[in-house]
Amino acid sequence: MTDKSDIKKVVLAYSGGLDTSVILKWLQVTYDCEVVTFTADLGQGEELEPARHKAKLMGLPDENIYIDDLREEFVRDFVFPMMRANARYEGDYLLGTSIARPLISKRLIEIARETGADAIAHGATGKGNDQVRFELSAYALDPDIRVIAPWREWDLTSRTALIAWAESHQIPVPKDKRGESPFSVDANLLHTSSEGKVLEDPWEETPDYVYSRTVDPEDAPDKPEYVEIGFEKGDGVSLNGEAMSPATLLTALNELGRKHGIGRLDLVENRFVGMKSRGMYETPGGTIYAAAHRGIEQITLDRGAAHLKDELMPKYAELIYNGFWFAPEREMLQAAIDLSQQKVTGTVRLKLYKGGVHLVGRKSPLSLYSEKHVTFEDDAGAYDQKDAAGFIHLNALRLKLLAKQGG
Amino acid sequence: MTDKSDIKKVVLAYSGGLDTSVILKWLQVTYDCEVVTFTADLGQGEELEPARHKAKLMGLPDENIYIDDLREEFVRDFVFPMMRANARYEGDYLLGTSIARPLISKRLIEIARETGADAIAHGATGKGNDQVRFELSAYALDPDIRVIAPWREWDLTSRTALIAWAESHQIPVPKDKRGESPFSVDANLLHTSSEGKVLEDPWEETPDYVYSRTVDPEDAPDKPEYVEIGFEKGDGVSLNGEAMSPATLLTALNELGRKHGIGRLDLVENRFVGMKSRGMYETPGGTIYAAAHRGIEQITLDRGAAHLKDELMPKYAELIYNGFWFAPEREMLQAAIDLSQQKVTGTVRLKLYKGGVHLVGRKSPLSLYSEKHVTFEDDAGAYDQKDAAGFIHLNALRLKLLAKQGG
Amino acid sequence: MTDKSDIKKVVLAYSGGLDTSVILKWLQVTYDCEVVTFTADLGQGEELEPARHKAKLMGLPDENIYIDDLREEFVRDFVFPMMRANARYEGDYLLGTSIARPLISKRLIEIARETGADAIAHGATGKGNDQVRFELSAYALDPDIRVIAPWREWDLTSRTALIAWAESHQIPVPKDKRGESPFSVDANLLHTSSEGKVLEDPWEETPDYVYSRTVDPEDAPDKPEYVEIGFEKGDGVSLNGEAMSPATLLTALNELGRKHGIGRLDLVENRFVGMKSRGMYETPGGTIYAAAHRGIEQITLDRGAAHLKDELMPKYAELIYNGFWFAPEREMLQAAIDLSQQKVTGTVRLKLYKGGVHLVGRKSPLSLYSEKHVTFEDDAGAYDQKDAAGFIHLNALRLKLLAKQGG
Amino acid sequence: MTDKSDIKKVVLAYSGGLDTSVILKWLQVTYDCEVVTFTADLGQGEELEPARHKAKLMGLPDENIYIDDLREEFVRDFVFPMMRANARYEGDYLLGTSIARPLISKRLIEIARETGADAIAHGATGKGNDQVRFELSAYALDPDIRVIAPWREWDLTSRTALIAWAESHQIPVPKDKRGESPFSVDANLLHTSSEGKVLEDPWEETPDYVYSRTVDPEDAPDKPEYVEIGFEKGDGVSLNGEAMSPATLLTALNELGRKHGIGRLDLVENRFVGMKSRGMYETPGGTIYAAAHRGIEQITLDRGAAHLKDELMPKYAELIYNGFWFAPEREMLQAAIDLSQQKVTGTVRLKLYKGGVHLVGRKSPLSLYSEKHVTFEDDAGAYDQKDAAGFIHLNALRLKLLAKQGG
Repeated sequence: MTDKSDIKKVVLAYSGGLDTSVILKWLQVTYDCEVVTFTADLGQGEELEPARHKAKLMGLPDENIYIDDLREEFVRDFVFPMMRANARYEGDYLLGTSIARPLISKRLIEIARETGADAIAHGATGKGNDQVRFELSAYALDPDIRVIAPWREWDLTSRTALIAWAESHQIPVPKDKRGESPFSVDANLLHTSSEGKVLEDPWEETPDYVYSRTVDPEDAPDKPEYVEIGFEKGDGVSLNGEAMSPATLLTALNELGRKHGIGRLDLVENRFVGMKSRGMYETPGGTIYAAAHRGIEQITLDRGAAHLKDELMPKYAELIYNGFWFAPEREMLQAAIDLSQQKVTGTVRLKLYKGGVHLVGRKSPLSLYSEKHVTFEDDAGAYDQKDAAGFIHLNALRLKLLAKQGG
Repeated sequence: MTDKSDIKKVVLAYSGGLDTSVILKWLQVTYDCEVVTFTADLGQGEELEPARHKAKLMGLPDENIYIDDLREEFVRDFVFPMMRANARYEGDYLLGTSIARPLISKRLIEIARETGADAIAHGATGKGNDQVRFELSAYALDPDIRVIAPWREWDLTSRTALIAWAESHQIPVPKDKRGESPFSVDANLLHTSSEGKVLEDPWEETPDYVYSRTVDPEDAPDKPEYVEIGFEKGDGVSLNGEAMSPATLLTALNELGRKHGIGRLDLVENRFVGMKSRGMYETPGGTIYAAAHRGIEQITLDRGAAHLKDELMPKYAELIYNGFWFAPEREMLQAAIDLSQQKVTGTVRLKLYKGGVHLVGRKSPLSLYSEKHVTFEDDAGAYDQKDAAGFIHLNALRLKLLAKQGG
Repeated sequence: MTDKSDIKKVVLAYSGGLDTSVILKWLQVTYDCEVVTFTADLGQGEELEPARHKAKLMGLPDENIYIDDLREEFVRDFVFPMMRANARYEGDYLLGTSIARPLISKRLIEIARETGADAIAHGATGKGNDQVRFELSAYALDPDIRVIAPWREWDLTSRTALIAWAESHQIPVPKDKRGESPFSVDANLLHTSSEGKVLEDPWEETPDYVYSRTVDPEDAPDKPEYVEIGFEKGDGVSLNGEAMSPATLLTALNELGRKHGIGRLDLVENRFVGMKSRGMYETPGGTIYAAAHRGIEQITLDRGAAHLKDELMPKYAELIYNGFWFAPEREMLQAAIDLSQQKVTGTVRLKLYKGGVHLVGRKSPLSLYSEKHVTFEDDAGAYDQKDAAGFIHLNALRLKLLAKQGG
Repeated sequence: MTDKSDIKKVVLAYSGGLDTSVILKWLQVTYDCEVVTFTADLGQGEELEPARHKAKLMGLPDENIYIDDLREEFVRDFVFPMMRANARYEGDYLLGTSIARPLISKRLIEIARETGADAIAHGATGKGNDQVRFELSAYALDPDIRVIAPWREWDLTSRTALIAWAESHQIPVPKDKRGESPFSVDANLLHTSSEGKVLEDPWEETPDYVYSRTVDPEDAPDKPEYVEIGFEKGDGVSLNGEAMSPATLLTALNELGRKHGIGRLDLVENRFVGMKSRGMYETPGGTIYAAAHRGIEQITLDRGAAHLKDELMPKYAELIYNGFWFAPEREMLQAAIDLSQQKVTGTVRLKLYKGGVHLVGRKSPLSLYSEKHVTFEDDAGAYDQKDAAGFIHLNALRLKLLAKQGG
């Protein structure tokens, strides 16, 4: 446990909910320290002003309450760079929670510097990945920062104990928080994740009430909808011809994804801390965006670049999942990936239908696709088929020698 | 061009269609050699006896006509091993054409040995990947074999020239083959691919008449269908509780996929010979199977094994795509992958609906998923949350030192 | 700290030296438990009977004292498999300490099972890699084993405290152990490593007295010596034509290496626990063996296999360094590597001189080197130089299209 | 063969030797075209003015004769970037020939543009890698350039035929060129390579007369020499405290390497065109430089960055060896590598002795090595050994679950 006597001021990642309100009070009581709250709008779709109100009720002065709209920064500097890599963890997960954590830590550290705080605190448990992501990011940005993780320190190990503690400390407990929540949720502009409780048996289908961001594909429109996404240098810049900022574009795609039931994922994944967990993810706009990005790369990215990206991707995704966004190896991979995107410019056409995203067309002023070379028709000498014989013979040479090796 | 005087007998990969019939005659005329035809049932869904009849009409004796049902071998020894790797080329392509070529070459070489032939011949063009796949496989299995690729040798470079040559050599030309085909097709039990002509503009949506293996998702049933696939040691062994051989299982999944409009893929891909091409793939059963395999791995495969597999996969897929099935590096990767599958046993539950495959449950007697470890509830000491602090501190140490590096 | 009341019997990795003798007594005193000692002959070049004598003095009955000669198993099942991979950590380190730890853990677990012990104990500190290697191996082999690491538990944090404790518990302290040792040493048949104290400034050259396994190259013979090492299926089997067992061969190479001053390495490396450390390694025979193995692969291993091995090696070496010998991903990589070695058979000729190992010749009945193909002279048609044009044209095609991309 | 009628002007990579003089004349005679010669000083240690004289004798006007000193560009823009990656092909080869080819092609293309030439020509044979490297680089820089490779086109397939042709076309043939050369040589500031003829049996030790850049280690000084190399941001900038330009530094290191017999390598390698070849390389300064670069990275490069570099290196080296310097995937890898070098600054101390380079010290104002963390002594709380227990437990968790998997 952190040495209590050293801590004078703590910046807390604060949602305004019951759990982080308990933490706020617990920090005051346990560390006898000043608390600064930081509440971020990452597009999670909740009002933030109630958080301000609650913080005030806990005795915080205005200057100790930070509420920031980080949506554009989140999409521009975190989601889009990650999407350039076509990153998917363990084949499927679009890393919606993982990618938000380093940004939160970055602001926590900035606010700690601004306010002269000597510690930060977060509400992630000791079993999950988020504690690792918050803390690795924080230490990478400020090696002397202290991190308080109450869930690893206190003895409020049951819901009952937590609520009893809250009540004994005059923290209002909403009625619907008195019982056990049937699952745990994290949300931001990229996705909503749900895990725990009713999801803990990986053989049981996720109940319908768990989903919050998408309609059931069966309830989606019976007619497909076509959309066009424009890209410049690897990043989305427009929807159906209308220019949009990163967060605006993702928000619009989320609405389309919600309507068509797109981006639900039921996954058993491997946590960095060593166990498997089952999660349900909804990434409506991100799923559409990811398909579109692959589509525009198909005609604008060279094979050598594309295959190198595919080989590097699993490691890149693992680094983000494990919390190493601010590690040099992630930055090195990003440098390689970003270099590849300079001509990833053009438009992709997608068909959205009943939970599916179907790539149906892509065009680009910088297309590498050469109808002249590929055509079955007369190609006017663009390609000499006899070259293929030499190409095959030299590729085969080592295999022929091997076939004669004996032994 | 191959030195003609040396060739006494050629084994031809023969479909019975117009093109390979022209090749058969062209080999007889050009090389003045004996021809042996080999026609494989790989599940392409065509009658093979007409091929026998046509070969006879071209003067071949019975013993020079080989017709083999390779469906079980194809799925058991090629498709399933590839599926163990979760192989996808360039993110999406399930390698349906690529994986069939080495098996055809293997039989061509076996038949060449049985019949004393000194060459093999195939009908792949000089612009595509298939010539490479056929020939690399052949040379790896018999380094002294001669390979005749008529499309790289002859001057029948237009459809008109081909048909004129056919007619001048008494080869019957079906009426519907007189005009240009609107696209080119390859089919086997795993997939049907279409490319060329009407597909050559990657911005144009694939016309409906190109699809042959799946219904339009819009015409698929309005109610989802649930299926359960059983796995043993990484391979599918049952459907809805009924034990099935590899080819039987894939055939049954194809029927399910067809019905629900599953497995359509519109792709611009990078050919090994250097240009981009646009293809339309239908892999109904394979798409379902691939999702199921990922699902069973989620609970039975260790993280270290799973992540290594994900890192190796792009190279493995590239090797198959490029024709290096019989190369030692593919075999090395296979050895690693196969070792990982020893406990990939259990059952996966999937929901099929309107073009989508949704993983909804997985269970296994060998599950690594530990509800005890992951639970938000009291875990009876299975996991000590305080361990996470040490874990984070040591993972952060290098990042902290780096943050103090200066410079 | 481990819960003391649960521990009834502990198997201790015991060298017979002062530190592990203190641990033995400390376990008896602290845990009030029965102790079993295990002392391995891994070729470290020390007498083992004194360890038996000391253990008896501490009150252990004969059946609680295990002394095993593991040299052949060590080289055959650990060193040689690792050498097949040409493993080097961070470019240079031949992993001499890392590779011995899993074998020691394997025996500790076996003995724990034989003796009904519920815990094992080791003398590695909390700052190093060895604790990780011992414990990961142990947990992988017996997930319920308890591990006691006294250096992480006790408060004997200075040399003075340790010696005082020893004397107060009637443990004889040799005179030369009273002062601080100038550096710390680990040795086995593969190497001797030294670190700490006088080596802690990475700018200072390692003092001469640190070296124990090799003569100073300046004092090595003024004439080179030629040796021939024979390989079968990737493993060394003979020296200068004389068949030898694995440990015998490595012992003989060590003597050659010692004489010629071969295998000294001064390295600053990155520990798994997060900091950099400076070590001095002497790997006389292993350095010769590694060069020889590369040499025989040069003529017997296909390019595809060789390049795949080179790509996999850094990860493989890292796994061994970090203690993941018994992890599935190490076993998967081993399966791939071992498959590649089936024809790595032949003889390598090396020149040893003044600290250097120079590969000067290699031959094999299974050589893939084809003088016929490579010769500048007339090659009788083995290779058609015109094939190179086609090979280059198709490799260049994507680069040409890229050069025309614009943008 | 290139269509002759199209070629009006050719830029020839011209050494002034017999072979390229024959090519010069052969181009004039065969293509009836204007020839421009380009002779580069890459530090090969030959006078270049004789090349000018010979070109004039063949009738070339002054403006068609280009002689450039490219030594600084070669080291600064090609050798040093490659060294940042610690690149070695197949474990050992420092890529001395491979890295020079793209620079030569770059100048050939520039001169072709300046002079309005429509083709370039080189003297590399159809069996080797250099043709590929020249041509891939050329096509990447100018997709419309024509490349003439006389060795793949003409019928001068024996030395006798070449000399007869030379004499019949009034090209002076030096006496020592009349017989067969005992081996073939390529040289530049980084290395000299020799291959062919007397080197074609890989079991035979390379005869002494093949070496030209280094003394025999047995004849090297009997006393070691210490040198210090300074680095800034990953590149060498000084020797023994004296600031030096890239080419000056490499030249000075070459002299040191020559004197101490450093950098000889006898290798059987795998050519891109499919066969194995045996080469003898001398890379005196480059071998010293490479050891020094590894040394400075040891204390200034983070583990994550270092390990990523080690994993990427084999692919990077293969790309250079195969001629893909100007391919996007090489540039992507370079971007990643270069980013890692920003703090690779400091000084390395090396001992040179009898063919060996021994790293003995390294220091840096930006060192990541922390004596405080690594010390065996009291570390004043820099590192809490108890953290290691948590670190190990969570790393072990998946292995424990695996050990209980059953099956």
